[in-house]
Amino acid sequence: MDITALREAHPDHWMRAAAIRALTLDAVAAANSGHSGMPIGMADVATVLWSKHLKFDAANPTWPDRDRFILSAGHGSMLLYSLLYLSGDPQITLDQVKNFRQWGSRTAGHPENFHADAIEMTTGPLGQGIAHSVGFAMAEEMLRARFGKGAMDHHTYVIAGDGCLMEGVSQEAVALAGRYGLGRLVVFWDNNNITIDGEVSLSDRTDQIGRFNAAGWHVQEIDGHDPEAIDAAITAAKAVKDKPSMIACKTHIALGHAAQDTSKGHGALTDADQNATAKDGWGWSYGPFEVPAEIKSWWEEVGHRGAAEREAWDGRLAALSERKQAEFARVFAGEAPKKLSSVIRALKKQNAEAQPKVATRKASEMVLEVVNPVMPETVGGSADLTGSNNTKTADLGVFDTDNRKGRYVYWGIREHGMAAAMNGIGLHGGLRPYGGTFMAFTDYARPAMRLAALQKTPTVFVMTHDSIGLGEDGPTHQPIEHLSISRATPNTLVFRPADIIETAEAWEIALKQTETPSVLSLTRQGLPTLRTQHKTNNLSEKGAYVLADAEGKRQVILMATGSEVSLAMAAREALQAEGIGTRVVSMPCWELFEAQDESYRRKVLPAGPVRVGIEAASRFGWDRWLLGERGREAKAGFVGMHSFGASAPAEELFEKFGITAEAVVEKAKSLL
Amino acid sequence: MDITALREAHPDHWMRAAAIRALTLDAVAAANSGHSGMPIGMADVATVLWSKHLKFDAANPTWPDRDRFILSAGHGSMLLYSLLYLSGDPQITLDQVKNFRQWGSRTAGHPENFHADAIEMTTGPLGQGIAHSVGFAMAEEMLRARFGKGAMDHHTYVIAGDGCLMEGVSQEAVALAGRYGLGRLVVFWDNNNITIDGEVSLSDRTDQIGRFNAAGWHVQEIDGHDPEAIDAAITAAKAVKDKPSMIACKTHIALGHAAQDTSKGHGALTDADQNATAKDGWGWSYGPFEVPAEIKSWWEEVGHRGAAEREAWDGRLAALSERKQAEFARVFAGEAPKKLSSVIRALKKQNAEAQPKVATRKASEMVLEVVNPVMPETVGGSADLTGSNNTKTADLGVFDTDNRKGRYVYWGIREHGMAAAMNGIGLHGGLRPYGGTFMAFTDYARPAMRLAALQKTPTVFVMTHDSIGLGEDGPTHQPIEHLSISRATPNTLVFRPADIIETAEAWEIALKQTETPSVLSLTRQGLPTLRTQHKTNNLSEKGAYVLADAEGKRQVILMATGSEVSLAMAAREALQAEGIGTRVVSMPCWELFEAQDESYRRKVLPAGPVRVGIEAASRFGWDRWLLGERGREAKAGFVGMHSFGASAPAEELFEKFGITAEAVVEKAKSLL
Repeated sequence: MDITALREAHPDHWMRAAAIRALTLDAVAAANSGHSGMPIGMADVATVLWSKHLKFDAANPTWPDRDRFILSAGHGSMLLYSLLYLSGDPQITLDQVKNFRQWGSRTAGHPENFHADAIEMTTGPLGQGIAHSVGFAMAEEMLRARFGKGAMDHHTYVIAGDGCLMEGVSQEAVALAGRYGLGRLVVFWDNNNITIDGEVSLSDRTDQIGRFNAAGWHVQEIDGHDPEAIDAAITAAKAVKDKPSMIACKTHIALGHAAQDTSKGHGALTDADQNATAKDGWGWSYGPFEVPAEIKSWWEEVGHRGAAEREAWDGRLAALSERKQAEFARVFAGEAPKKLSSVIRALKKQNAEAQPKVATRKASEMVLEVVNPVMPETVGGSADLTGSNNTKTADLGVFDTDNRKGRYVYWGIREHGMAAAMNGIGLHGGLRPYGGTFMAFTDYARPAMRLAALQKTPTVFVMTHDSIGLGEDGPTHQPIEHLSISRATPNTLVFRPADIIETAEAWEIALKQTETPSVLSLTRQGLPTLRTQHKTNNLSEKGAYVLADAEGKRQVILMATGSEVSLAMAAREALQAEGIGTRVVSMPCWELFEAQDESYRRKVLPAGPVRVGIEAASRFGWDRWLLGERGREAKAGFVGMHSFGASAPAEELFEKFGITAEAVVEKAKSLL
Repeated sequence: MDITALREAHPDHWMRAAAIRALTLDAVAAANSGHSGMPIGMADVATVLWSKHLKFDAANPTWPDRDRFILSAGHGSMLLYSLLYLSGDPQITLDQVKNFRQWGSRTAGHPENFHADAIEMTTGPLGQGIAHSVGFAMAEEMLRARFGKGAMDHHTYVIAGDGCLMEGVSQEAVALAGRYGLGRLVVFWDNNNITIDGEVSLSDRTDQIGRFNAAGWHVQEIDGHDPEAIDAAITAAKAVKDKPSMIACKTHIALGHAAQDTSKGHGALTDADQNATAKDGWGWSYGPFEVPAEIKSWWEEVGHRGAAEREAWDGRLAALSERKQAEFARVFAGEAPKKLSSVIRALKKQNAEAQPKVATRKASEMVLEVVNPVMPETVGGSADLTGSNNTKTADLGVFDTDNRKGRYVYWGIREHGMAAAMNGIGLHGGLRPYGGTFMAFTDYARPAMRLAALQKTPTVFVMTHDSIGLGEDGPTHQPIEHLSISRATPNTLVFRPADIIETAEAWEIALKQTETPSVLSLTRQGLPTLRTQHKTNNLSEKGAYVLADAEGKRQVILMATGSEVSLAMAAREALQAEGIGTRVVSMPCWELFEAQDESYRRKVLPAGPVRVGIEAASRFGWDRWLLGERGREAKAGFVGMHSFGASAPAEELFEKFGITAEAVVEKAKSLL
């Protein structure tokens, strides 16, 4: 690559971009780890995008109508930190850049949205940025339709690498963006032909242009080091309103460095001599972390460029009706409406009386029928299981190219893409997504579900068909370990409600979260109403509670969740008939129970009585409750699954796998 | 659709295919559940494929050189069961068909490979069939190159639906098949334009032809109800040797039924009148489950068609050298070579003496360096982290279009596709795959890892960078819940070896499995050799064992895995110095420990002493060991992670998260 020619062709641009390259080299060298090549390769694209197109106001990184910039290739985090520092972000200071990848700094190895306001999302696991960006762009469309162009009118820009495009989730994202005509989504493909193992051709020969075209995208190919071509391509992409745009940027990884165009260039370039030589070649003669005032102030002007636009936006927002303004403020604050609790309470009261026998997936629909009308920010959907997940209520309308006000999304058979896009909708702000698939397909959505937890997005995952109660579809569709998977994940609430009342309570809790995703594990099969005495309080909020206490001396505690709580109640009846005092504890949410103080937990689960846990799932994780927090507390047993499931009618499966009231009685008696 | 015209155009073909359609209607009606539409829609394609092209011998369903038939759209299982019954498979009898989806029958809701020899793999979770098929086709290429065309010379046929093609993993599979020029892979796309939620266009407008072309496939479009077109397309697909083939078959779901071309047609068609009308339209006037003798015997001839070919193959195999024959038999039996144990023992002995401080990922490479030369059936690989996963040894050679003997696969950034294809390689038989990624990206590979366990494929997942010991890359790359995820999964061995000796033992165990996948959880950071006294026995085989016993009165048991075992040893030293007798139990594999008899478990973990578990991961699942199997056994504590990780140098992270020898000492003392 002829660096001199590049420098001479656009000398001002070159030096502005070189600041990113130099900061990257310096920060990676100081940390002695990180990824140098991508920021160096994409500095030109980023410089043009940020200085000429990106709508942002560095001093107000959470301005709702900013353009969203998503670094899907998150390992190139120094690109983002350089841009933020240079443009005057108040949180990403020079000290932060110097402390790249160190304990307590905002400049983590990969961008973490909880470390700085300007970081839209956590990236690093490849493909997630591009997949989440579909949600960001959908949210913009939805909110523009609701609040008008004056309040919401921006673009979503993504930088994705070969890794992002090889990950399967990218196909789900690309297909969704094409299907829904997300014209304000612009993806830059860092086409540098290098992965960690070597040249891309080692493992991939996909014609990405053809692939994106096949999904209905507007596609351009440019030299990613030519600022005029970059500018023109972005302008052209913005002009196409009905298709998402992909700009294939031919770049050189680690441009101008000895490691240019090699997989070595992908990683940490820490050789002092090579780095010095690279800087010389770039014409960068400044000390480590030094940016000349002229260049820094140009970048700071870039950071201020959006201030006027933001102020104009303030004015337009103020011109909305007071009701609209209040609504806008509420939904962007992620606050549930006051009416939520009252409609939930009314539903609980009504059903404590009516005592329907309904599957909790159906109960969930009944909850949504009262919630969606009072919570216009909800966005529902399903990965092609709408009728099975019971996620669609009549009032939502269907999101489509000609109905941006629609609140229901047909995600197709794309659990992973759905989960990622839901997170993106939530992270954008102003909307609260929920979406469904079968509980067993948690597996497909996992990478995005973990990100929801890590990046503090209160997405609600509606996971129905939550056990062998699914029946004939058999073991591929029957979750066994999936409750464990979500329960073992930090910052995740896992609800397995026992009846319609607990289902309503679970939804209320989930919809009030601002930083924690929820998994609702719901049955296919009908369950009786157990909470027949109406309580205004949300009992599920404590995670576990005494549903029925022992009569006489308390000898046994049965602990169960979801469909097995009614089974515990039947077992209790049998045990009490034999004079064995038996308490039933319903445990709809372990994480909330864990969060209670010890005195409450001990009140619910006192030491002494025999304990039997009942759940049509793996025992894994149950011992924490069965054996007592301190050990030495109780003799205990478990009635549940010890293998994968099987294909047969549901009732027969419970029988064959020994998950019955009789088995519970027997287990309890064997321990006494 | 004009059924009469179809009938009249090819009357013989029509009735043979109608047998599949009628059996499907009858079986689904009897089960009152299942999926009728797909088998009815794809009956023509399947009839032509099985009768004119598929190389199989119904009486010998495990014949190694058979063509593989993979029903990726597994919900259409009655298509497969009908074909097997009709063609005379000895296991799928008429009784089995009548017991569709019932307890104990071979005819599960979705095809399960452990229920019948002729079922190549378990399908149902969408996209898995097409993704596994890449491995089946790779295995054929590899084995043909090794054993010659006389021994191995077949095709892999796949039926995939829109669901399969929407799942992201399909893109990984399609790109891999294109990249590696898998010319003997033929995928039929059941292009029926219907998903569960409605028409495909509701959620997808991808030009699949363009998409497959972009990945380097040979693509054809045909009328999926025209037997001549189907035949010609298969012939053309087979003629293309250097590209995989996709045949887009325009079909009508539930052809000729009232539910034709609707999403209702996807599910269980159980309306007796509608079914009768459909059968009338098909010209099928027989009773339930009745197939006229003429049609049945035609199908049985189809089933016998391959017998001569199989016999000829027997002859060709017998003509190979004795050594080759023995090798062929051994690798297809999945037996490890006798030399495996001796090279492992030698490596253990050598390193018990040399006592290197190496990361277990590096130790794993050292093991592979002695194993790969004596186990020619191993196939290594990595999802673009070859240098980090340490999965490539010098002797393997790289699998490519011009080197089918290569034993190392560059999978690209495709953890899911890699895991699925590895399973496919293993299921094909004759090869033993292993492959690596970062432990945190278990998430991406999960659906295929679960299938490995369910369908009893002994794939080895080499998961490196197994804790916060990964360091600066931060929380997205640091596993917390991933040990729990794999441990909670049935039929999965999860190894977290403490040093090079345990790493060698783990590999030995993993490579001897025939029905159980293994997860090797390996460190990035160096670990001292702890097993400095050589034992010929594989101590890890018991899952947990006493690494160092208490001196004096046994007051404390420290239980740890992987990198935390050396930390436990340091804590033991400190405790012993204070006169507190402390045992250290290394627990490299919980599942194997669980499988021991109780007396061994109690010998290792006697009741009484305080127990402290130490693992740089979630506590989830630990209580089963900490609190004792019966409860009332021990006071216990845990030193590990209680949140996501962070970005910083590894040593600092262990310090900041309180996973240190000092913390262990303190915890133990607080419990005494």
